[in-house]
Amino acid sequence: MLKNTYMRWKLPLICFVWETAMIILFGVFVRYNNEANPSWAEFKKTENISLDIQNDFYYRYPSFVDVHVMIFVGFGFLMTFLQRYGFGGVGFNFLMAAFGVQWAILMQGWFHTFEEGKIRIGVESLINADFCVGSVAIAFGGLLGTISPVQLLLMTLFQVTLFAVNEWILLDILHVVDAGGSMTIHTFGAYFGLTVSWILNRPKLAQTNNKERSAYYSDLFSMIGTLFLWMYWPSFNSAISNHGDAQHRAVINTYLSLAASVLTTFAIASAVDRKGKLEMVYIQNATLAGGVAVGTAAEMMLSPYGSLIVGFIVGIVSTLGFKYLTPLLLKIRLHDTCGIHNLHGMPGIIGGIVGAVTAACATEGVYGAEGLRKFFKFEGEYAHRTPSMQGGYQAAGICVSLAFAFVGGTLVGLVLKLPFWGDPSDENCFNDAVYWELAEEDEEVGNHYATPEAAKQV
Amino acid sequence: MLKNTYMRWKLPLICFVWETAMIILFGVFVRYNNEANPSWAEFKKTENISLDIQNDFYYRYPSFVDVHVMIFVGFGFLMTFLQRYGFGGVGFNFLMAAFGVQWAILMQGWFHTFEEGKIRIGVESLINADFCVGSVAIAFGGLLGTISPVQLLLMTLFQVTLFAVNEWILLDILHVVDAGGSMTIHTFGAYFGLTVSWILNRPKLAQTNNKERSAYYSDLFSMIGTLFLWMYWPSFNSAISNHGDAQHRAVINTYLSLAASVLTTFAIASAVDRKGKLEMVYIQNATLAGGVAVGTAAEMMLSPYGSLIVGFIVGIVSTLGFKYLTPLLLKIRLHDTCGIHNLHGMPGIIGGIVGAVTAACATEGVYGAEGLRKFFKFEGEYAHRTPSMQGGYQAAGICVSLAFAFVGGTLVGLVLKLPFWGDPSDENCFNDAVYWELAEEDEEVGNHYATPEAAKQV
Amino acid sequence: MLKNTYMRWKLPLICFVWETAMIILFGVFVRYNNEANPSWAEFKKTENISLDIQNDFYYRYPSFVDVHVMIFVGFGFLMTFLQRYGFGGVGFNFLMAAFGVQWAILMQGWFHTFEEGKIRIGVESLINADFCVGSVAIAFGGLLGTISPVQLLLMTLFQVTLFAVNEWILLDILHVVDAGGSMTIHTFGAYFGLTVSWILNRPKLAQTNNKERSAYYSDLFSMIGTLFLWMYWPSFNSAISNHGDAQHRAVINTYLSLAASVLTTFAIASAVDRKGKLEMVYIQNATLAGGVAVGTAAEMMLSPYGSLIVGFIVGIVSTLGFKYLTPLLLKIRLHDTCGIHNLHGMPGIIGGIVGAVTAACATEGVYGAEGLRKFFKFEGEYAHRTPSMQGGYQAAGICVSLAFAFVGGTLVGLVLKLPFWGDPSDENCFNDAVYWELAEEDEEVGNHYATPEAAKQV
Repeated sequence: MLKNTYMRWKLPLICFVWETAMIILFGVFVRYNNEANPSWAEFKKTENISLDIQNDFYYRYPSFVDVHVMIFVGFGFLMTFLQRYGFGGVGFNFLMAAFGVQWAILMQGWFHTFEEGKIRIGVESLINADFCVGSVAIAFGGLLGTISPVQLLLMTLFQVTLFAVNEWILLDILHVVDAGGSMTIHTFGAYFGLTVSWILNRPKLAQTNNKERSAYYSDLFSMIGTLFLWMYWPSFNSAISNHGDAQHRAVINTYLSLAASVLTTFAIASAVDRKGKLEMVYIQNATLAGGVAVGTAAEMMLSPYGSLIVGFIVGIVSTLGFKYLTPLLLKIRLHDTCGIHNLHGMPGIIGGIVGAVTAACATEGVYGAEGLRKFFKFEGEYAHRTPSMQGGYQAAGICVSLAFAFVGGTLVGLVLKLPFWGDPSDENCFNDAVYWELAEEDEEVGNHYATPEAAKQV
Repeated sequence: MLKNTYMRWKLPLICFVWETAMIILFGVFVRYNNEANPSWAEFKKTENISLDIQNDFYYRYPSFVDVHVMIFVGFGFLMTFLQRYGFGGVGFNFLMAAFGVQWAILMQGWFHTFEEGKIRIGVESLINADFCVGSVAIAFGGLLGTISPVQLLLMTLFQVTLFAVNEWILLDILHVVDAGGSMTIHTFGAYFGLTVSWILNRPKLAQTNNKERSAYYSDLFSMIGTLFLWMYWPSFNSAISNHGDAQHRAVINTYLSLAASVLTTFAIASAVDRKGKLEMVYIQNATLAGGVAVGTAAEMMLSPYGSLIVGFIVGIVSTLGFKYLTPLLLKIRLHDTCGIHNLHGMPGIIGGIVGAVTAACATEGVYGAEGLRKFFKFEGEYAHRTPSMQGGYQAAGICVSLAFAFVGGTLVGLVLKLPFWGDPSDENCFNDAVYWELAEEDEEVGNHYATPEAAKQV
Repeated sequence: MLKNTYMRWKLPLICFVWETAMIILFGVFVRYNNEANPSWAEFKKTENISLDIQNDFYYRYPSFVDVHVMIFVGFGFLMTFLQRYGFGGVGFNFLMAAFGVQWAILMQGWFHTFEEGKIRIGVESLINADFCVGSVAIAFGGLLGTISPVQLLLMTLFQVTLFAVNEWILLDILHVVDAGGSMTIHTFGAYFGLTVSWILNRPKLAQTNNKERSAYYSDLFSMIGTLFLWMYWPSFNSAISNHGDAQHRAVINTYLSLAASVLTTFAIASAVDRKGKLEMVYIQNATLAGGVAVGTAAEMMLSPYGSLIVGFIVGIVSTLGFKYLTPLLLKIRLHDTCGIHNLHGMPGIIGGIVGAVTAACATEGVYGAEGLRKFFKFEGEYAHRTPSMQGGYQAAGICVSLAFAFVGGTLVGLVLKLPFWGDPSDENCFNDAVYWELAEEDEEVGNHYATPEAAKQV
């Protein structure tokens, strides 16, 4: 039986309600910070800053723009690999992220830059908002083609909220380092999405739907996404690192880890194929695992060869995951359209562990006595921390992120399971014709089931 | 009757004549400015600059590159949405812009950086040239598929000239603020293009031509353009703002306005469709209106929620324009291929008004006493200006831009209407086969009408 | 007879062996430099650096990212123009470059930043590694569709090695200027690739293979590559220039030269076609010649009109090369898939000559007395050099690069000619089905010849 996917009132309603809420909340709470305000001239004097170029804007804007491209073009085009879900992949990701960044600025602002009743925003707020939305894009990847835009916007609201709380616990309570978000973004995003997918499960999807596959050109479009993610990942992992050597080092480590994971991805992709040929989907995804897995440790003294080792390992793990684990998960009714478990789930956890170990191994010999204290911010109430304690807290961060993902994903999944959000029936999954006006020759199904008249009957 | 579209002598001739003219004029007039010249070492001393990083290059180069991408990939790929005019969209835009930037450097240079008989150029000149060419790309959008490359190059020559004069009047005579070009770029570009289109009108186009539509993959190519425009628009609106807080603020405002217009575009797109489905063309275009409409006010104290409100409104206006106004305009014989009236025309005027109102509302309380004077450059002969007077001048800027667009567009349209520029007949509009060598299976028409022999007969 | 293209053991083996070698060598040799190390805090004090923003990272990171995009998306997508070799073009370029940058960091490090037994790397190392890999991407362009990924990885190992030696001779022995690599990257890369192609020659390719042509959408994908190369080329030529005016000037010169070559490319493209129509392949390639040809001189005082003249000339030369020279070369059995001789070979040599002439014409009047000495580094053992001597050394640099290309290309070609590297038979060239798993409807040939069983028979 085909479900009612008629969006005419639901989608406009949710868009208007939420955007209106954003305007009101921004009106009440959000203001420019001192570096984006005319008070900058005064601020420079009080802070003893001599040059305009020392505005945080110039330290971070180039990285911010790259992160922005990763969210909208990177994730967006990566999700165009399905032969008939390109519009949904890139279009709904666009809608989700545009809403998500606004809500993230509020949520993260309340936790991190709330002063005298106002959230003070600057370029770092925009980067953090993009990061937060990245975790929603990851979760969406697991659900691609099976949910309605209304469900996606609902999920965004909840997931951004949970993200901000989880991030706050990790960064402010556990006091962990996670500049590239292996734990907060990738681990949380992936397992949240997988939990939602498991709750929403569609046991007969494989039997009733034949659209979940790629085509030659859709795979090329997807490579646009892959490459922009891959090229800009050094910006991602360094965007909010400390000025100076930390940003510099995070770029080098990420660059190297990514390079290594490309080699092992191609190697395993060929080795697991009976004919030794390459599956495009592995290349599109597993090559990126190196960026995920140095998310936590990128700014640490992981060392160049350490980065290569991490990339080497996760390239293998991720490709094997696509080949063997995804089909296995499907058998326990866990559907994962883009393979987020292989690209973000496992490499995210590995990244968290790498971060914990690297932190635990930190010494004053490597960082300098003052450098070590400054890098991990062993100050104030954290002054007594040692590197090995820090390693323990880092490991705790992985567990907290997983707990948030499972519990949050379950609750949100149950909300999304309610029958009136307009998700497609199994036959209509992975089909743009359901939510998009297509030229007649591009349509096959779904059309006459989505008219107001049909809506009443279903 | 098919027209003569034979380009073999016309196109090479115009390219060679104009490029030769550029070389001569650059030889006579154009030199590096002090920041791109070995005199930089000396200049630092006289200007009391201590560090190389204070070279304007480092303040603006990252933004410049993004603007460059918007002009060539953004506008270029946005115009690939037609099923058989992808080569013309991206290719002719490339040709136009490559010539346009050179001519713009000269025209804008004569007006703004002309010293002792020489135009002194630096990174800001390159940005301004790209801006100027942006207005031609907008006008080209209205005419896409209906003009020849020779007509386009002619139009570029005239439009860049008019742009530079109009810009000079606004910035130097009226002394208005328009860093992101709502008036100079969008309003002028759109209404100029529409006027040309109206003069060149093709009353029977709709009856005789069936190619003005998109296909699945061409719509995906177009989304590449949309997203790069969307992501880099904060760079566009901040690229020539003052160093420090002004650039920072312009980025934040543009980012937020764009995010809001995505939400309302999706909302209206769904609401105006009988089946509640989304038209790709609305998503490709109206989501960008938020960037256009904060072009003037982006660097002002528009405030974050003010930016959201602007984006909210123009997303609605632009989408409704695509749905209802474009078909209406077609009835009065105004053909607008890309819907530039909806994306640049109306949002541009709204942007001008927003800028005028924001300027008029400026107070010393918000900007600081000195900040207000410095921001609006209330100095020298403009020392007596008050914010409300400034608001009036800003409003006058909209009118001047419109006047330039209508009068200039009429004159240029009449020149382009002359019968020997090689524009396609109605049947051949929106068809790459007319000007491009296509593989046989990709061709349908026009081929044998463009040989030298046929040229003689027509 | 179809050749054995079974990759199942060969490709994984070479990937694993080489990545393991990288890890070991990086472990032994590679460390962060002082600007990417916690020692940065100390380094600032000893070097009298006051601000974090003076870290070389902030001078070069925006350019680095653009160069990165050129290598992976620029070259990668440029090579998707063949109708059935898009996966191979973008995918194998990805694999090659990911390995190449690692090996280049080592090779270039041993020659240039080797101190006390360690290679010290920073952002400039990453740029230089990308540059080096650019020359391999160029060579790959000449061989596209005719070699196996194993051959490509072998070639990368050898070519990067030769590149580093050649670069060392030019920069350290001849003491030439070549910031944008007209000689080291383009001339060397192109003639190396052509020599390899000549050695590997396939005399019957044209008769037995009908796949070496483009399709409508593949040409549009290729334009993505073209435009990102074109837009970011100013970053390429300025990425490792001196801080301040040199970087600034290199951007201006490259921007202008590229703009001019677009005009003359369109002109000649139309003029040489019987019907006056444009061949997409000329537009995709020859428009970029302007960037190649100012590679050496971009940071010199070439002057704005000088840049336009260079672009003007190479646009013509390159387009004529595609039309007339490539077919001619084919007759002497020199196959050049992407026309690298026209885009990188001839413009590279012209670029070397332009650099030599511009250097020879340098005067103290233009650069300042100290400026001249500093720019060309006429210091230490080179203190006696005059500009005209420098011009001579620059010219010698072209000859050395050509010699390295011819001799190196011959040797490497002979290695690649060995019969067990898995290259496709003539019938299977330019066909993704040989090395990639395609959906059944996308496959035509090669499939059953690549199984283990067939492998034994061939």
